[in-house]
Amino acid sequence: MRDFTFHTPTKIFFGKGKEANVGEIIKGYGFKKIMLQYGMGSIKKSGLYTTVMTSLKENGIDIVEMGGVEPNPKYDFINRAIKLANEENVELILAVGGGSVIDSAKFTAIGASSSLDVFDVAMGKVSTDKALPVATVLTISAAGSEMSASAVLTNTELGIKKGTGGDYIRPLFSILNPELTYSVSRYQTACGISDIMAHTMERYFYPVDDTPLTDRIAEGLLKSVVEAGRIVMTEPHNYDARATIMWASSLSHNNLTGCGRENALAVHQLEHALSGMFDHIAHGAGLAVLFPAWCRYVCGKNIKRFAQFARGVFDVKEENDEIAAILGIEALENFFKEIGMPQRLREFGIENKAEELAELCTMKRTRTIKSYVEIDADVAKDIFNCCY
Amino acid sequence: MRDFTFHTPTKIFFGKGKEANVGEIIKGYGFKKIMLQYGMGSIKKSGLYTTVMTSLKENGIDIVEMGGVEPNPKYDFINRAIKLANEENVELILAVGGGSVIDSAKFTAIGASSSLDVFDVAMGKVSTDKALPVATVLTISAAGSEMSASAVLTNTELGIKKGTGGDYIRPLFSILNPELTYSVSRYQTACGISDIMAHTMERYFYPVDDTPLTDRIAEGLLKSVVEAGRIVMTEPHNYDARATIMWASSLSHNNLTGCGRENALAVHQLEHALSGMFDHIAHGAGLAVLFPAWCRYVCGKNIKRFAQFARGVFDVKEENDEIAAILGIEALENFFKEIGMPQRLREFGIENKAEELAELCTMKRTRTIKSYVEIDADVAKDIFNCCY
Repeated sequence: MRDFTFHTPTKIFFGKGKEANVGEIIKGYGFKKIMLQYGMGSIKKSGLYTTVMTSLKENGIDIVEMGGVEPNPKYDFINRAIKLANEENVELILAVGGGSVIDSAKFTAIGASSSLDVFDVAMGKVSTDKALPVATVLTISAAGSEMSASAVLTNTELGIKKGTGGDYIRPLFSILNPELTYSVSRYQTACGISDIMAHTMERYFYPVDDTPLTDRIAEGLLKSVVEAGRIVMTEPHNYDARATIMWASSLSHNNLTGCGRENALAVHQLEHALSGMFDHIAHGAGLAVLFPAWCRYVCGKNIKRFAQFARGVFDVKEENDEIAAILGIEALENFFKEIGMPQRLREFGIENKAEELAELCTMKRTRTIKSYVEIDADVAKDIFNCCY
Repeated sequence: MRDFTFHTPTKIFFGKGKEANVGEIIKGYGFKKIMLQYGMGSIKKSGLYTTVMTSLKENGIDIVEMGGVEPNPKYDFINRAIKLANEENVELILAVGGGSVIDSAKFTAIGASSSLDVFDVAMGKVSTDKALPVATVLTISAAGSEMSASAVLTNTELGIKKGTGGDYIRPLFSILNPELTYSVSRYQTACGISDIMAHTMERYFYPVDDTPLTDRIAEGLLKSVVEAGRIVMTEPHNYDARATIMWASSLSHNNLTGCGRENALAVHQLEHALSGMFDHIAHGAGLAVLFPAWCRYVCGKNIKRFAQFARGVFDVKEENDEIAAILGIEALENFFKEIGMPQRLREFGIENKAEELAELCTMKRTRTIKSYVEIDADVAKDIFNCCY
């Protein structure tokens, strides 16, 4: 087991109707003026906006609104939010939405705490450990940003999607009500499931051994998500299944499944290039195509690990490790297919841009990505080609 | 899944040699004067005391020493520590030791933040949410106090061992170096394993269903502890096995395995009466005797759950649930036996005090304890008799 630091101070309020307490919770922390960020208006249709606003107002919280966060939050939008947050001296950024809204809130919180350019922060050109507090009311189980130390933004002009990380951007608190995800479409639910599984598998398949406790937590999480995922495909209002997926979302990316391991988020790096270049590709859908392809590409380097995955997650009974490993990857691919995820990049209606994507994710061949097989531009190109 | 609040802000520094950073970490938080609590001197023999003191002094931290915490920390000692902490205006209590030292530090932290009597707090007569910050350097994997919201003290005069709980007493940070547990005796290691398993099983066997994710995390934790427990019995210096047990210690009682469930710590309530009355009984050893007896007493109320436990933790292959449930409890009992735990209360060299113990744990028949079978004084007496 590798040395690790584990710090997840985000307070989780989990359960039915908890969003109605948001104002009281914020007041309890002593904040008086906040910025409310949300997406393209679905929270207005669902009534969540009214619930949140009512709770905030009843508790005397001043609200600066900044709706309109797009999927894959944009650098431009974030800069406008930072400007407004500074002008209005807000004390906390409240994100009501999914991963994009939360990531937008996190970058706003970073930008409003210093004069740094948040794209420079994302590109790793400058570093910081200061951010306003962020809180969330989660509406989509997927990114895990509600409890994670990371955030991603997209610079549309440059076609670059990049992330940053650090405990300083973990939310102060997050409200998780599984009922709020009842209305998430079948497709978006499946994208979320792919993302949750990918967060877990990225850590599970990092080249470190001897972490049986962390492994079993990861396998249990994956197995539970597969089971619940099958249920919500036909029963979108199944509370317990939605709850399992929602809690798994948070645990999959708060680094519990990475304790004693490490985490290069290898397949995420490939996918960020993809959805950075093609804005219409949902992150989870991209991951669902790329992950099995990556597994096939690298599994020869640690057959035992992939066999363990097959048995621990998909109950593969095969005793031969090599066969079990392949069966496990097939089971993963079949599960993604079953929940309606694409199998090939061509299904997104795009040209094969393997070469350009490979350049992008290796930052013009200036870096490689750690995985069982070190990913340089040539390897990345192979993987993108394999799944085109 | 039941609603829950989950808040584990304790920062974990896990790995080899991390205790040498304790002064730097404390300095990083800005504390200048601390109280150092430790036990009966084993940290002086092992050299840990010197390491910690050197690190504190090098970082300019003023130290008020309060060594001599006994197993099952005593009300008297804690009161002396509170007095000293107040006189010296210490800002943080650093516990270097196991659960008893940490619990002593927690009660000292409570007492030094108000004029409340900490025994009244433990008895639930008064409540508070204020405590000085506590930090820990853990030397025994067992109580989980290094990341938990609870603490227990013993009033020797009244023969009462009682606990209190709340997020406000979760440690600020804990340093977990598995190497520090190499020197823990075989017996104490086994007691710790029993305690860790009991913390997990108490939650796992609380009468709530529909928490598959939490269940699988619990099963994975138990299975990993059983596996690692067998290893350390013959290889006390096996780093990975010690690391698994140490990390399981923290996760077993930080409430991760209770999310969406509840937790009456039923068997703990029985055991606290036992080791409150008989100071020579190690908490973990008491639990190892009581837990299988409690399981047998209540398992008829939820055979399916005990069958799931048998299959998930001990790989019982039996398809009939009733038989599997019994085989699981037997496997648990056999495991405790295998690691050198007693099977019967008489092995502690005590008289059968079932009647008195039953009165004690139900506070003279004024309360019952929630479990599959509600535990009143008569039930408690039955269980104590069963395992005498």
